[in-house]
Amino acid sequence: MMEIAPGPLLKQINSPDDLKKLSRDQLQLVADELRQYIIDVVSVHGGHFGASLGVVELTVALHYIYNTPFDQLVWDVGHQAYGHKILTGRRDSFITNRKYQGLSGFPKRGESEFDTFGVGHSSTSISAALGMAMAARAKGENRKAVAIIGDGAMTAGQAFEAMNHAGVADTDMLIILNDNCMSIDPNVGALKEYLTDITTSPTYNKVKDDVWKILGKLPMGANFTREMASKIEHSIKGFINKRSNLFESFKLRYFGPIDGHNITKLTDTLKDLRDIPGPKLLHIITVKGKGYALAEKDQTVWHAPGLFDKITGEIYKKKFELPQPPKYQDVFGQTIIELAEKNEKIFGVTPAMPSGSSLKFMMEKMPDRAFDVGICEQHAVTLSAGMATQGMKVYCNIYSSFMQRAYDQVVHDVAIQNLPVIFCLDRAGLVGEDGATHHGAYDIAYMRCVPNMIVSAPMNEAELRNLMYTAQLESTTSPFSIRYPRGEGVMPEWKTPFEQISVGKGRKLKDGRDIAILSFGHPGNFAATAIRELRTEGIDPGHYDMRFAKPLDEELLHEVFKKYSRIITVEDGAIQGGFGSAVLEFMAANNYSAKVKLLGIPDRIVEHGTQKELQKECGYDAKGIVEATREMMKDLVYVNNLLG
Amino acid sequence: MMEIAPGPLLKQINSPDDLKKLSRDQLQLVADELRQYIIDVVSVHGGHFGASLGVVELTVALHYIYNTPFDQLVWDVGHQAYGHKILTGRRDSFITNRKYQGLSGFPKRGESEFDTFGVGHSSTSISAALGMAMAARAKGENRKAVAIIGDGAMTAGQAFEAMNHAGVADTDMLIILNDNCMSIDPNVGALKEYLTDITTSPTYNKVKDDVWKILGKLPMGANFTREMASKIEHSIKGFINKRSNLFESFKLRYFGPIDGHNITKLTDTLKDLRDIPGPKLLHIITVKGKGYALAEKDQTVWHAPGLFDKITGEIYKKKFELPQPPKYQDVFGQTIIELAEKNEKIFGVTPAMPSGSSLKFMMEKMPDRAFDVGICEQHAVTLSAGMATQGMKVYCNIYSSFMQRAYDQVVHDVAIQNLPVIFCLDRAGLVGEDGATHHGAYDIAYMRCVPNMIVSAPMNEAELRNLMYTAQLESTTSPFSIRYPRGEGVMPEWKTPFEQISVGKGRKLKDGRDIAILSFGHPGNFAATAIRELRTEGIDPGHYDMRFAKPLDEELLHEVFKKYSRIITVEDGAIQGGFGSAVLEFMAANNYSAKVKLLGIPDRIVEHGTQKELQKECGYDAKGIVEATREMMKDLVYVNNLLG
Repeated sequence: MMEIAPGPLLKQINSPDDLKKLSRDQLQLVADELRQYIIDVVSVHGGHFGASLGVVELTVALHYIYNTPFDQLVWDVGHQAYGHKILTGRRDSFITNRKYQGLSGFPKRGESEFDTFGVGHSSTSISAALGMAMAARAKGENRKAVAIIGDGAMTAGQAFEAMNHAGVADTDMLIILNDNCMSIDPNVGALKEYLTDITTSPTYNKVKDDVWKILGKLPMGANFTREMASKIEHSIKGFINKRSNLFESFKLRYFGPIDGHNITKLTDTLKDLRDIPGPKLLHIITVKGKGYALAEKDQTVWHAPGLFDKITGEIYKKKFELPQPPKYQDVFGQTIIELAEKNEKIFGVTPAMPSGSSLKFMMEKMPDRAFDVGICEQHAVTLSAGMATQGMKVYCNIYSSFMQRAYDQVVHDVAIQNLPVIFCLDRAGLVGEDGATHHGAYDIAYMRCVPNMIVSAPMNEAELRNLMYTAQLESTTSPFSIRYPRGEGVMPEWKTPFEQISVGKGRKLKDGRDIAILSFGHPGNFAATAIRELRTEGIDPGHYDMRFAKPLDEELLHEVFKKYSRIITVEDGAIQGGFGSAVLEFMAANNYSAKVKLLGIPDRIVEHGTQKELQKECGYDAKGIVEATREMMKDLVYVNNLLG
Repeated sequence: MMEIAPGPLLKQINSPDDLKKLSRDQLQLVADELRQYIIDVVSVHGGHFGASLGVVELTVALHYIYNTPFDQLVWDVGHQAYGHKILTGRRDSFITNRKYQGLSGFPKRGESEFDTFGVGHSSTSISAALGMAMAARAKGENRKAVAIIGDGAMTAGQAFEAMNHAGVADTDMLIILNDNCMSIDPNVGALKEYLTDITTSPTYNKVKDDVWKILGKLPMGANFTREMASKIEHSIKGFINKRSNLFESFKLRYFGPIDGHNITKLTDTLKDLRDIPGPKLLHIITVKGKGYALAEKDQTVWHAPGLFDKITGEIYKKKFELPQPPKYQDVFGQTIIELAEKNEKIFGVTPAMPSGSSLKFMMEKMPDRAFDVGICEQHAVTLSAGMATQGMKVYCNIYSSFMQRAYDQVVHDVAIQNLPVIFCLDRAGLVGEDGATHHGAYDIAYMRCVPNMIVSAPMNEAELRNLMYTAQLESTTSPFSIRYPRGEGVMPEWKTPFEQISVGKGRKLKDGRDIAILSFGHPGNFAATAIRELRTEGIDPGHYDMRFAKPLDEELLHEVFKKYSRIITVEDGAIQGGFGSAVLEFMAANNYSAKVKLLGIPDRIVEHGTQKELQKECGYDAKGIVEATREMMKDLVYVNNLLG
């Protein structure tokens, strides 16, 4: 591995205090070194890429002008915060970014006092920063709060809720709208078009120039007095009101747009805005992936490219001799097209994850029937419900942890009305490097308590296809959730013919003796591996792939509880209220008595690492299942040995 | 009871077809009769009041102009839809509104083909109507979709998410913004001020008048051709662009504001808009409570006043000889003030429910420390989290069913960061007349699966006070949820001195024989009543008020499982994944074996009725507990009798 060394200026910056010692002329040099360091580290160690490159100048300018950590920066969707981490004492440890027990890929309060708020999901920053600003005001502290939010994140409803409050709350907070026209995929919707309009409109730029001319006349470097600030405010209002804009509608003073890569302009502007009272928004224009030509060109690929050769830009791909299993995502993406070709009622909806979910294939092939609604999970679910009232079969694909944001819509608009919307919960279970904020840990519990909801999980690719097939049949009249993990399945030959699955029917994979393992979804494969090992030592568990956490296969469970007095349940979801809990409820309701051990995600926050590392830590990988089984069989093996 | 008779025109209207037979001159008469009928019925039978009175003219106009139910109306927060129900075949059954097995207080798909979408929670209508419009387009149907949404509901993020999509989706949908400056309480936030601005601005009204002048020149009654529509569009754009507005920013064509009580203007306008292609928004100004003077004057009181004398306006209050227990809401509202007077870090936040939650008392007394953020549950939670990072103790009071809308923020912004935000989940359990959409059924399950979250419920007023007291202590360092039901507690003398409760500690209320009842929250009182009855027949259950569904009082549970082999759990929440389920998980983890019966809300949608009727239906009122206990004790009683 090539040694990674920060540039000469960056090498000296161990905190923003060091940065502040530099002259303004040196800031672009620091930015260049910071950009290079991010390229060097990410190319070798992996991680998000484009977002942080796009805000290098902004990051340097913010820490140069603001008194961090006393002043508080909230980075929306924190994968833009790599530069921030590097400048705030984590330069050398940055090579552990997103690794097991290393730095988090997002700002994290426990990691640094500069990380004011944990930001893995988008669009929370304005609310959080406003809370900080209001607390500062209540405490009489002259502490500034700045939210840095992308135009993609701005489409989420929460951002508007927060602006509706920020505009009338009397705080000095600053919102920086980092406009690069991108989420992970290109940003969509009316707001995007609006931002493009105001950025390119000559009228608008005229207004902007006038405003900046006024600001330019003010004495540089001096602190503005209240009176001066009010004067500016007045002048600006006069100009801006000539063409009221969206943000002004929310009573936020709007500044910009300005070039987010012009570090001199940025520092000048931030210095001015820092001392202007009241809620305000600065609109900056940046390029995602800035400074790395390939990343600027194909921004979606370079959002998080994996490892690559930084010179040639070749993204490394693992090479295999034998055909490998596909990703569950791609099985979804291909299968929905196959189904949609036969059933014209089928539609696909994603909230800003066309690439991640692989719905992009259908969006390319059937643009009228598959769409990206932006970072708008709530709307995505109710829209799907509206379409379902008209008989459409909508596959609403949302990551498990993001579905938390549309929970009320799942309950209120879909389940209570018993509309047969199909929820594909991607990234269910432990997701790996994205860590705590992204683990799909809670969906089994939060879906299972909702009436009418079918809660299913496929053990492999063929099962995913069959569940997807079953969900769109006219005979399926209830909401149908299908959860599957991030990453590869187990079947290189995955394109199996469709078979209908009876809703609520599991599969007995093998009979056994003394103990049964009931698995839900992909961890059934861990159980199968465990069972192979256990058999070598004379323990022979039965294995049931239950497929449905709801409705439960009661017939199969009667068989299990009649035959076995020891039962292990395995799921990649929170144990509390999850699939295993459902099995216990069945046991209690039917007066069975058995020893039951629940394996799954324990009741604590699980951090980041590879999926394998985390599954091991949680004790439900094959090894964990082997150990739990041995433990449960201990007394019986002892008896058997005595008898044997 | 006075007989309630509809007026002569209304009497003949059994469906919108009958309405369409009337001349335009008769429409105001119908509206007057409709208004009177609503006053007559609601004064005697109860229900929501102000919202439906405010849209009487709109309701008549919509059904007169649109071809319902082929064209689809989606009423946001459906308690404005009483007029709609009365005009669509439910005039005579309207006296059963909100009663057990009667009409729902909200539109409900199962009730009528005119009810296109169930709308109990706010701000879903644009998403749902857009889904319908997109489905219509896909099917090639010339079906119109209209969302009718209030200015209060418009502040919720989902409305913005939907507009962001609607503006670029090529459908003919119409959004009607019913602007009355109110949610249940006066509407708040920047958007409200904005709407006031554009309503009262002379410039704006000039533009509006010009637009309407153009529309006025078009031939009345004839269908517009595409060409003509495009002409109108062009002219309007020319005017509107002079002062871009918020909705235009979302690429919606904006019309209005117009007087929502001028039925001629309304019908003319709707007729024009019906045939104008593309997404558009009509802004109408109405008065909540219109036509009933007292309701116009005090709109919050008359949102849902209970029974009243329609002539004098006297709202009937039950009279009691003895002091009665207070509402849990008022205990919250008074107790937070007591605590805040001693602890300056305490703040209170409500999303648009100052009256319902009784936070209004603190808002009046300490306006800087208690605020209404509008219908913005997501923002309310993350704002609270932001304040908590600065050491503030925020009581974020949100109804259990509305908290579903901020679930991601609970997980991502509060629990993962282990911030000690205090969630007061009001209206937990079965809420009664508001029915399925409002039951607080799922919070125990959806909170319990989240790490770090304390899940508590008080059995009475003193317990609520003590939990609230404990939650704000510096020694409490985790998020703390306190769920309590709608309505009265059990302690007329409720203002007890504060006592700290050890987190995760329950109370043994009484010892017993053979069987134990573990209750969570207010239903502990049902259990106490049941136990009194059971003792008369020789069954003597132990009773434990567990207080915490998480963390469980393991010490107490060890005592219970060692002593009792029969256990009943009681909660007013969904059984799946709830408190009882937690007890089963404890039992399995600790290798106990007991018969356990879980009482609570079953796994189906529970409709509306009084709380008592519904608790009975679900089998966890005192009678249900008695019966469940008898059933569990059957064999033992038989044995005891043999022995005895």
